[in-house]
Amino acid sequence: MRTIRGGVVPPVVTPLTEDRRFDVASFENVIERMLAAGVDGIFVLGSTGEVAFATDELRSQVVSEARRIVGDRAPLLAGVIDTQTDRVLDQVRRAQDAGADAVVATAPFYAVTHTPQVTRHFEILGAQSEVPVFAYDIPVCVHTKLDADMLVALGRSGAIAGVKDSSNDDIGFRRLALKNADAGEPLVLFTGHEFVVDGAYLSGAHGAVSGLANVDPEGYVRLHRAHLGGDVATVRAEQDRLARLMEICLAPRETTGWGSGVGAFKTALMLLGVIASNQLPQPFEGLAAADVDAVKAILAEVGPTS
Amino acid sequence: MRTIRGGVVPPVVTPLTEDRRFDVASFENVIERMLAAGVDGIFVLGSTGEVAFATDELRSQVVSEARRIVGDRAPLLAGVIDTQTDRVLDQVRRAQDAGADAVVATAPFYAVTHTPQVTRHFEILGAQSEVPVFAYDIPVCVHTKLDADMLVALGRSGAIAGVKDSSNDDIGFRRLALKNADAGEPLVLFTGHEFVVDGAYLSGAHGAVSGLANVDPEGYVRLHRAHLGGDVATVRAEQDRLARLMEICLAPRETTGWGSGVGAFKTALMLLGVIASNQLPQPFEGLAAADVDAVKAILAEVGPTS
Amino acid sequence: MRTIRGGVVPPVVTPLTEDRRFDVASFENVIERMLAAGVDGIFVLGSTGEVAFATDELRSQVVSEARRIVGDRAPLLAGVIDTQTDRVLDQVRRAQDAGADAVVATAPFYAVTHTPQVTRHFEILGAQSEVPVFAYDIPVCVHTKLDADMLVALGRSGAIAGVKDSSNDDIGFRRLALKNADAGEPLVLFTGHEFVVDGAYLSGAHGAVSGLANVDPEGYVRLHRAHLGGDVATVRAEQDRLARLMEICLAPRETTGWGSGVGAFKTALMLLGVIASNQLPQPFEGLAAADVDAVKAILAEVGPTS
Amino acid sequence: MRTIRGGVVPPVVTPLTEDRRFDVASFENVIERMLAAGVDGIFVLGSTGEVAFATDELRSQVVSEARRIVGDRAPLLAGVIDTQTDRVLDQVRRAQDAGADAVVATAPFYAVTHTPQVTRHFEILGAQSEVPVFAYDIPVCVHTKLDADMLVALGRSGAIAGVKDSSNDDIGFRRLALKNADAGEPLVLFTGHEFVVDGAYLSGAHGAVSGLANVDPEGYVRLHRAHLGGDVATVRAEQDRLARLMEICLAPRETTGWGSGVGAFKTALMLLGVIASNQLPQPFEGLAAADVDAVKAILAEVGPTS
Repeated sequence: MRTIRGGVVPPVVTPLTEDRRFDVASFENVIERMLAAGVDGIFVLGSTGEVAFATDELRSQVVSEARRIVGDRAPLLAGVIDTQTDRVLDQVRRAQDAGADAVVATAPFYAVTHTPQVTRHFEILGAQSEVPVFAYDIPVCVHTKLDADMLVALGRSGAIAGVKDSSNDDIGFRRLALKNADAGEPLVLFTGHEFVVDGAYLSGAHGAVSGLANVDPEGYVRLHRAHLGGDVATVRAEQDRLARLMEICLAPRETTGWGSGVGAFKTALMLLGVIASNQLPQPFEGLAAADVDAVKAILAEVGPTS
Repeated sequence: MRTIRGGVVPPVVTPLTEDRRFDVASFENVIERMLAAGVDGIFVLGSTGEVAFATDELRSQVVSEARRIVGDRAPLLAGVIDTQTDRVLDQVRRAQDAGADAVVATAPFYAVTHTPQVTRHFEILGAQSEVPVFAYDIPVCVHTKLDADMLVALGRSGAIAGVKDSSNDDIGFRRLALKNADAGEPLVLFTGHEFVVDGAYLSGAHGAVSGLANVDPEGYVRLHRAHLGGDVATVRAEQDRLARLMEICLAPRETTGWGSGVGAFKTALMLLGVIASNQLPQPFEGLAAADVDAVKAILAEVGPTS
Repeated sequence: MRTIRGGVVPPVVTPLTEDRRFDVASFENVIERMLAAGVDGIFVLGSTGEVAFATDELRSQVVSEARRIVGDRAPLLAGVIDTQTDRVLDQVRRAQDAGADAVVATAPFYAVTHTPQVTRHFEILGAQSEVPVFAYDIPVCVHTKLDADMLVALGRSGAIAGVKDSSNDDIGFRRLALKNADAGEPLVLFTGHEFVVDGAYLSGAHGAVSGLANVDPEGYVRLHRAHLGGDVATVRAEQDRLARLMEICLAPRETTGWGSGVGAFKTALMLLGVIASNQLPQPFEGLAAADVDAVKAILAEVGPTS
Repeated sequence: MRTIRGGVVPPVVTPLTEDRRFDVASFENVIERMLAAGVDGIFVLGSTGEVAFATDELRSQVVSEARRIVGDRAPLLAGVIDTQTDRVLDQVRRAQDAGADAVVATAPFYAVTHTPQVTRHFEILGAQSEVPVFAYDIPVCVHTKLDADMLVALGRSGAIAGVKDSSNDDIGFRRLALKNADAGEPLVLFTGHEFVVDGAYLSGAHGAVSGLANVDPEGYVRLHRAHLGGDVATVRAEQDRLARLMEICLAPRETTGWGSGVGAFKTALMLLGVIASNQLPQPFEGLAAADVDAVKAILAEVGPTS
């Protein structure tokens, strides 16, 4: 029950109260709604989960609460995002202690590294982590693209168990999937897409870690099951609807950057009655009224009915 | 017969002799092989077709010879690549005079422009061109990404007939396809992909302008027809094979940048006996022996049998 | 009189009438005002000179008219900007025929090249040009930074006579100047700066090709002569004033990209009575009224008095 | 004695033993040598000081030891580098507790922010820090360039005391210095340059935070004093020598990215007998033998004599 083989694994938002305290009740609502929809795992402290904003203390609390809520019902993955190897190792220990079944780590960032250092980074993480390590490929945040050959080699050596690909590089993903297939599939491959999950499945993804699954977990589960069942018409129709829904992240005008996407997810969840507030962590502010209205309009048109 | 509605439209290479003269006989072989494979159009003077290297005189000759070879058997598109509007208009006239059925133009480049200027650029081209204009979205060359809303508006006003998307931005392409659908499909959408044409079809592409179709036109025609017939298994198997074949462009070690891709296409065509030489235009050199061997090995494994 | 050894060599704007014809009378006024100010050369068809917008026919006309106006009073440099080697060679012939004393060429662009190809490009240009070739380092337009070791080697071999550095990379410029000094100064080094010409002189520049010298040629001549005379206080005071004046290029709100800078130069020249119109080439429009006012205010405060 | 008004403030390396423990004795040697050279402050936990690699525990130790060593002899600045506001606030408290006189903070990173968020970030830091805050402009690490108008406004409001500019944007620095002058100099401006400190002084820098001052503190002090004394010939000669010495950071071939620069500094210090080992933190390795030789050769030619 706690092994990660693919499927829909949403990167859970971290709800805040208006005065920016962790809103555990809302967090529980989000996760229970996902589990009811049939997701295959829960991923906390991803980029969507505000990992870059959370203090170490809050990070531990988020993982602990998630573990308590999820119990044995699904595997729990936790982001261990930090700048360089030794700091990430501290995060790994923190996540393990709080109950994570697996950790998700990026390439080093802030100080520039290249493939030899990135390789060594993941080798060290793999050797020292007690739980499986997933490599998180997210150049928009860390400004390094993970090399496909490196990833497959790390998979073969056992250093990493899989990849979450948020690189928006569909060529890179196809090449990774083919190389992984040729190597006997050592890696579980997740796409971080919201807009083109169907294309990623066609390329060989085993699952999807889509931020929009906070808002519409049933949609992504339906898409995944249709894909498994070979029902291409449903796959495409569901993906087209979800792509239209994802426009909520591009609608905000006052808040830009990271805040427009997660701000839209939180706003939609607030409008759906799942969480209490759309507050964002410092230095962001929750979406302004006009932007809330923009999200509301899209949600009314193509959003989930439950 | 000369209307462009989608399908496989390869961007034809421009074969050169060893001493860098235009090799018309080889050019004819490449095009005849494509037509025999059942392609839906011929695109000359694309990035693959060495447009950036060709003098105005050579450009006219390439279009004229292509027109002579193709006759009425297929529509002929020609790249009219130049830096800014007035220079592109000169290229449009040249391409029309030489017999092109449509022209393919990028955003302005060298001097930085933004969406208001790019819009005006295509409006002027649309107003002054006597043949349909396709917008060529290729940020790796022009360092501007075409805005989806702008493209659909240009389609609705009749300024452009379609888009060739070589932006490697699958989110952008999905959004463009949805917006185009919502507007009543004013645009014919081509993907410039080689690796993920199947995903682009799923997103709503009407056709593919794949450089690798120089080497394996039958493969891309097979993929396109399987897509039209709803045969997903064939689509994916053919795409996986073509993706493996596309590794020829990543294999060269001595030649990098533009030359590794087109150098590999020309080398494969030479090895297949279609063209006489793999020579590249100045300041590039044709692939070195070790790189030719690398191409040969991949071609032997996953290349076309005819 | 027509040898280029450094000093102030302004990149002359190309004035247009309201209906976008070449305004030769205004062009003559601009150049005569520069010569009266004591500039050391005239550079036409640079980025400021609208080279990317000018048809081949207009390019020839601009060089011819400049030659006629300048006569033997100063060396005349002409930009030969085009995508790749063979096209640049065509531009070199055109510039030579029209009377240029030297040509200014960038790295190849549109199709990606690296240092081996860039080297060969300049070697070919150097071998085939009948007049001296200056390398134009302008990554914002061509997206390639010229390598310092390559440039010095090209200088030693005689392929190029000098460099115009518009890369805004002061580390790169210092390194180039030191390497050039170590090699016996084969290259004449111009900075393309407006804001930090004093720093470039300190690093070893022999001259400045500053677009703002269209507006204030006397200021840049004064700065250069103070530098030659070791009068640091005047150098810095003049540079600070010119830096404040250069804010005209950052003031426009409606026009962005290339058009804000050259639009501001043309607007200032119009306000000073030197040229008739601030019109810009397609797809740009001349600065709007509010932006003209912004330029006017800065000009009144820190602009030239003559 | 502990107020920061400018001058030479080296970003101190963090020496490690071969088995990667903090080498306090070597650290003390580095700092004592700097103080003996007459530096105006000590900056620990900058990018050069391995802040991105150091665990929270090590960070506290580095600041504590630096405070103990420096005593009241100079102001002590400490980097408080972390991803977003709340995490940086934790680092601020840690640095204050360990004895820092001022903290140095970057724009938020990992999650994308724009100027409104960056402004709020520094406002919060300024309000909650008990010691002065310096803004650290280092786009190569954080991928955000700090806006000059924002910085001056933050200076006027008292949120920040100064700026360390490592943006390698000499236009931006000149504009910042002019705006700061116009506002009555609310900010102390440091350049992070090694190669063009003289140019930055000319533009208005009050001091230099040069990594190379680890290797040659006397050189940078000499340069600074010559600048204050108006001795341009010495300024330029010293800067040219230091620029040649800085080539040690570009010489390594096996180690690239962050490690080539700091690896070269540590190697030079080891060769000069100041520190015991040139070890680098995980995932880097200390420079290999051939790279050590390259550093040695440059050091012998243009390095410090003491």
